[in-house]
Amino acid sequence: MPIRERVLMGPGPSNPYPEVMQALARPVVGHLDPDFLAILDETCDRLRSVFRTSNALTLPISGTGSAGMEAAFVNVVGPGDSVVIGVNGLFGERMCDVASRCGAEVVRVDEEWGRAIDPQRLLSAHPAPKVIAVLHAETSTGVANDVEPLGEGKGDALLLVDCVTSLGGIQVEVDAWGIDIAYSGTQKCLGVPPGLAPLTVSDRARQRFVERSQSWYLDLSMISDYVGAARRYHHTAPISMVYALHAGLGTLLAEGLDASWARHEATGRALQRGLEKLGFRLFAEEDHRLPELTTAWLPPGLDDADARRTLLNHYGIEVGGGVGEFAGKMWRIGCMGHTARPGNVTLLLGALEELLAP
Amino acid sequence: MPIRERVLMGPGPSNPYPEVMQALARPVVGHLDPDFLAILDETCDRLRSVFRTSNALTLPISGTGSAGMEAAFVNVVGPGDSVVIGVNGLFGERMCDVASRCGAEVVRVDEEWGRAIDPQRLLSAHPAPKVIAVLHAETSTGVANDVEPLGEGKGDALLLVDCVTSLGGIQVEVDAWGIDIAYSGTQKCLGVPPGLAPLTVSDRARQRFVERSQSWYLDLSMISDYVGAARRYHHTAPISMVYALHAGLGTLLAEGLDASWARHEATGRALQRGLEKLGFRLFAEEDHRLPELTTAWLPPGLDDADARRTLLNHYGIEVGGGVGEFAGKMWRIGCMGHTARPGNVTLLLGALEELLAP
Repeated sequence: MPIRERVLMGPGPSNPYPEVMQALARPVVGHLDPDFLAILDETCDRLRSVFRTSNALTLPISGTGSAGMEAAFVNVVGPGDSVVIGVNGLFGERMCDVASRCGAEVVRVDEEWGRAIDPQRLLSAHPAPKVIAVLHAETSTGVANDVEPLGEGKGDALLLVDCVTSLGGIQVEVDAWGIDIAYSGTQKCLGVPPGLAPLTVSDRARQRFVERSQSWYLDLSMISDYVGAARRYHHTAPISMVYALHAGLGTLLAEGLDASWARHEATGRALQRGLEKLGFRLFAEEDHRLPELTTAWLPPGLDDADARRTLLNHYGIEVGGGVGEFAGKMWRIGCMGHTARPGNVTLLLGALEELLAP
Repeated sequence: MPIRERVLMGPGPSNPYPEVMQALARPVVGHLDPDFLAILDETCDRLRSVFRTSNALTLPISGTGSAGMEAAFVNVVGPGDSVVIGVNGLFGERMCDVASRCGAEVVRVDEEWGRAIDPQRLLSAHPAPKVIAVLHAETSTGVANDVEPLGEGKGDALLLVDCVTSLGGIQVEVDAWGIDIAYSGTQKCLGVPPGLAPLTVSDRARQRFVERSQSWYLDLSMISDYVGAARRYHHTAPISMVYALHAGLGTLLAEGLDASWARHEATGRALQRGLEKLGFRLFAEEDHRLPELTTAWLPPGLDDADARRTLLNHYGIEVGGGVGEFAGKMWRIGCMGHTARPGNVTLLLGALEELLAP
């Protein structure tokens, strides 16, 4: 099969940084090799910098972003625990599914897809929840939910935040915002292939871990003994993917978080302005619209499947379709990680202009 | 940090095949890209060939081998289900832990570490278990357990077999032996870095899935809709690692399963003969001794930590230490995947001879 390159402008994966692809080819060593442990430790340090936290328990989970979500819930939620979950998209629904499989009493706070959730509604949904959970960036709708007020008003609850599509792309402040558990995925704004889920957990949350997680694989009490000083074997770390994450975080921190956020902002907004000029109608409400992941109604005359096929096969560009009731009518266009470059925006807008030309 | 290469002769990871390292560098595409789906389909086909099965549900789980173990249990075991588990090493213990977190009533069949489990004891341990589970190759002891008689005598039970250290290294016959659920890891005899867990499930087992798995991430009913024709999004596939597994299986099948088994047999036995000549005493009982993973008591005069440090730093060779009560007294030496070459055996034996020389 010929090897084709793509400009990855779907909801993820994004194009990895070149340094990441080089790191993947680094010779594999053992998971207890001093060289690997040094890279793992530095990876965890870099994750602390990117999450803006001093949490000791900060590490890459050995699975994709969804494994991060499951790890976040199964360690703090047990049968009968009350969990308030904000639902304004597919991934909020998924949180409810994951939490209910832990036996949680789920208290949903629904909001229309495309709109942000009012933090006060989350704070007043239950008198004393164990966990309040929300998506920072809803990948299905392109909406950013406010997190900071939740940290201020959470009281005794643990604040659990999905940062899969936000980390590295927009400001995330785990410690300053009072987030207790945050997780992400490697394949969005971090510019690394899919396969790992960065995760950070506050000491406050660790003290409220369930006695025995229903998941052995994602049991953070056990995993922390490998990542920490004890180096006690739990499962074999995914060596090559850790190399890749280490390199991607290095590239991101060398650029600087502020610069990365500014780059995602500039390219995302340029894309959104260009789409509107071409007749696309933006979906997410304006003051909670993510720059790195744009949702837009297709303009008249553009057929979803035809257009995406031509973009892929003729121009080498991937964009994502809408989910659920929006399938066929909406696109999700990512501009994340290494993909978030002005040239890619110009390329996609130019291709769309050609597709829309009479 | 300088990049150091290692000859990986621990219990895993092994050295990946060169074709695998090339595949890791292949450009990342989306998880719904036709090019990726073709590679994923071919990967599943190749897994069917390697597992010797026609099971439709055959796929790589997006986690390491231990995620394969968890996926195997959480889809068929629910609260109160009786599960017979053979325990003659660390990974049998782990099975008990995983199964009990599913709420299973675990019936242990213990055997001394270093000895194989009598299949008749597993078959008669419970009148009507839902699952009988056993390790084909115990990585902690170097022992092979007999699987074929379990398939013959299982009755209504599902036969669940851990093939993490056996698949690709010794004969595994999922269909012919009546195995219902088997899983493996990529980093042993398949010659691929750690990160994925090949898994196969019989139709018989699928019909007896629990109504709703406690794990969302490992819910095979949902995952099968992505791997199958529906292509329904579940989680983002770990693209680069799937490339790597695809390539590793291609290398293995090009060599031929019989040839790979013979190579593991020849190199492993040569290593074992050489170790005995040097004064090591082999641990696993002789007629159930794995070729690909050797356990041996250290000879007098060889200090565990010193010797392993010198092997690693001076010769670039990793071997593994003993686990549990055997730590400091025993080594586990792998000769798996691309590592299973005569030159590596000669190198290790030569290095040990130098270390033992007065």
